[in-house]
Amino acid sequence: MDLLLKCDANYVPLTPITFLKRANVVYANRTSVIYEGTRFTWSQTYERCCRLADSLRSLNVGKNDVVSVLAPNIPAVYEMHFAVPIAGAVLNAINTRLDAKSIATILSHSGAKLFFVDYQNVELASEALSLLNGAAPSVIACIDDIDTPTGVRFGQLEYEQLVQRGNPGYTGELVQDEWDPIALNYTSGTTSAPKGVVYSHRGAYLSTLSLILGWEMGNAPVYLWSLPMFHCNGWTFTWGVAARGGTNVCLRSTTAKDVYHNIAEHSVTHMCCAPIVFNILLEAKPHERREITSPVEILTGGAPPPASLLQNIERLGFHVTHAYGLTEATGPALVCEWQKKVEQTSTAGSGKTQGKARD
Amino acid sequence: MDLLLKCDANYVPLTPITFLKRANVVYANRTSVIYEGTRFTWSQTYERCCRLADSLRSLNVGKNDVVSVLAPNIPAVYEMHFAVPIAGAVLNAINTRLDAKSIATILSHSGAKLFFVDYQNVELASEALSLLNGAAPSVIACIDDIDTPTGVRFGQLEYEQLVQRGNPGYTGELVQDEWDPIALNYTSGTTSAPKGVVYSHRGAYLSTLSLILGWEMGNAPVYLWSLPMFHCNGWTFTWGVAARGGTNVCLRSTTAKDVYHNIAEHSVTHMCCAPIVFNILLEAKPHERREITSPVEILTGGAPPPASLLQNIERLGFHVTHAYGLTEATGPALVCEWQKKVEQTSTAGSGKTQGKARD
Repeated sequence: MDLLLKCDANYVPLTPITFLKRANVVYANRTSVIYEGTRFTWSQTYERCCRLADSLRSLNVGKNDVVSVLAPNIPAVYEMHFAVPIAGAVLNAINTRLDAKSIATILSHSGAKLFFVDYQNVELASEALSLLNGAAPSVIACIDDIDTPTGVRFGQLEYEQLVQRGNPGYTGELVQDEWDPIALNYTSGTTSAPKGVVYSHRGAYLSTLSLILGWEMGNAPVYLWSLPMFHCNGWTFTWGVAARGGTNVCLRSTTAKDVYHNIAEHSVTHMCCAPIVFNILLEAKPHERREITSPVEILTGGAPPPASLLQNIERLGFHVTHAYGLTEATGPALVCEWQKKVEQTSTAGSGKTQGKARD
Repeated sequence: MDLLLKCDANYVPLTPITFLKRANVVYANRTSVIYEGTRFTWSQTYERCCRLADSLRSLNVGKNDVVSVLAPNIPAVYEMHFAVPIAGAVLNAINTRLDAKSIATILSHSGAKLFFVDYQNVELASEALSLLNGAAPSVIACIDDIDTPTGVRFGQLEYEQLVQRGNPGYTGELVQDEWDPIALNYTSGTTSAPKGVVYSHRGAYLSTLSLILGWEMGNAPVYLWSLPMFHCNGWTFTWGVAARGGTNVCLRSTTAKDVYHNIAEHSVTHMCCAPIVFNILLEAKPHERREITSPVEILTGGAPPPASLLQNIERLGFHVTHAYGLTEATGPALVCEWQKKVEQTSTAGSGKTQGKARD
């Protein structure tokens, strides 16, 4: 008997697009995105992504073309994580805290064909574009606020109009090779100019599953977007929340007031952040605070926070898991899994018992 | 900028062997296997698998060769799920409830080179081999009880001796192609003879992760082997418990007494079974029962059990998740995820609140 199997016609490529297509089928009526007064279901998010992808194709953006975006954690950036690869293109989410020179370097080096700019980042984008001397992306599009449109315009096109004019029946380009690129992220470039890191569909898919497993993120999380989506694609949770049929709570800034308000209002279960956000939460003024009535899982990265900081943040109702990674590793690659003996030691000081006992 | 990425020298194939190698590193001293009075750690299980794989190679069992086993849920069958592919070979775990004729058909059709037989299955194996007329596996090895050796011998070799004489420094054959076969399972053959289904390393890896996610099996589960390992490789949990750094509680039979005893003794958190096992547990005599003090997650397959049966089993301290699949789909392919609204309805009758609320 010949047991040899080779990948051929039955080959199903690994791609995060699968997570959205599945969410559209099995979590169709569940809330996918919350942003201020705006809410979408997974079937609506899927339709919006297909529409946007179709509009990208009509702009001649396709296979391996780079689409850059400069924006905070708004629904548009979330949707672009699926719409751009559905069109066969590569997403380049740019850090809004960079200076104009670095942004110009990224736009030039990536060869971005299309550049989306949030209305709040128009000034920074203008300055970056002015440095490009003719190597600018051929199409510039503005993203107005979806919940409270401001009327600010920049470039030739507007995001919401592109979504609306796209064909909802467009099913996307075929991912022929799972090693094809899905995203292009630039490291902070501590030694010189930012350096580009290419994520493949396969790598993004596997890293997404790996981090859901490492953090033990269960079904239907309510995920607060405190970590920037431009940071290694939100440590893969842009794709991961779709895989878990969760709800994305988007917000423009991580002020104490906004974070506490959104946690309380939407019963947030999960969030990622740098340890600096712990300080923001701990130093909140009384009128900015809201009681955390159900534990919120926090995944934090980088150097381990001091024990006293961890104890203080856990007293407020957060449960912290620590991870480490880098842009080149598709975000967090190491997770410090909770162990029973560690929990017994760490909670002795805070006088609080962890919800889950593991060994 | 050329974003094309192709798999080449940096290609890391997907294979469940990774789960064991990782467990050996990150869960080295955690208990991997419990069987009666025998206990192993993950570093011991890894060493035993490397030793056995080396012995298989010395018997000239290698790439794409089939190794069959006829045995209950004992540590040897668990170890073979890694040792056989480490040697580059393909595991064929045979249903011990089949008749001799079906087993002979499987041994013949698979072209098994090596056949392991548990001491309790010697009679059945003898009868099957007598039907083969010269097409029998070239090497037969007996598996004696590791905890309480009986001295029963069958064939030329003995399992534990093969483990002990192997080189612990053997690191295994390179998985060159993730589409290479890792396991060969036969369907029950309701229409004629059993039909073989080949699982690839890639398929086994992905199905394992998929089912851990679908069932939300967290870190360090204590997994009771109530479902046969020969049943689609224990619905992939042979590999999955290693991926989660859990503990495998092995047992020879799923009698009410053995199941209750092992749950209580080892604080079992997870088990899989057919709905028939619910009846075994519900009909247990008082002296066979032990109190379930912490909820045990059950994954069950096939047709949905009646609501009354579910209510009765949940009252005992079990929490049931329902799945459906088939041998051709690497075991359970569909999982009925718990939803808040379903939980509210289903628990109304039992007067019991589920531990986790999801939507």
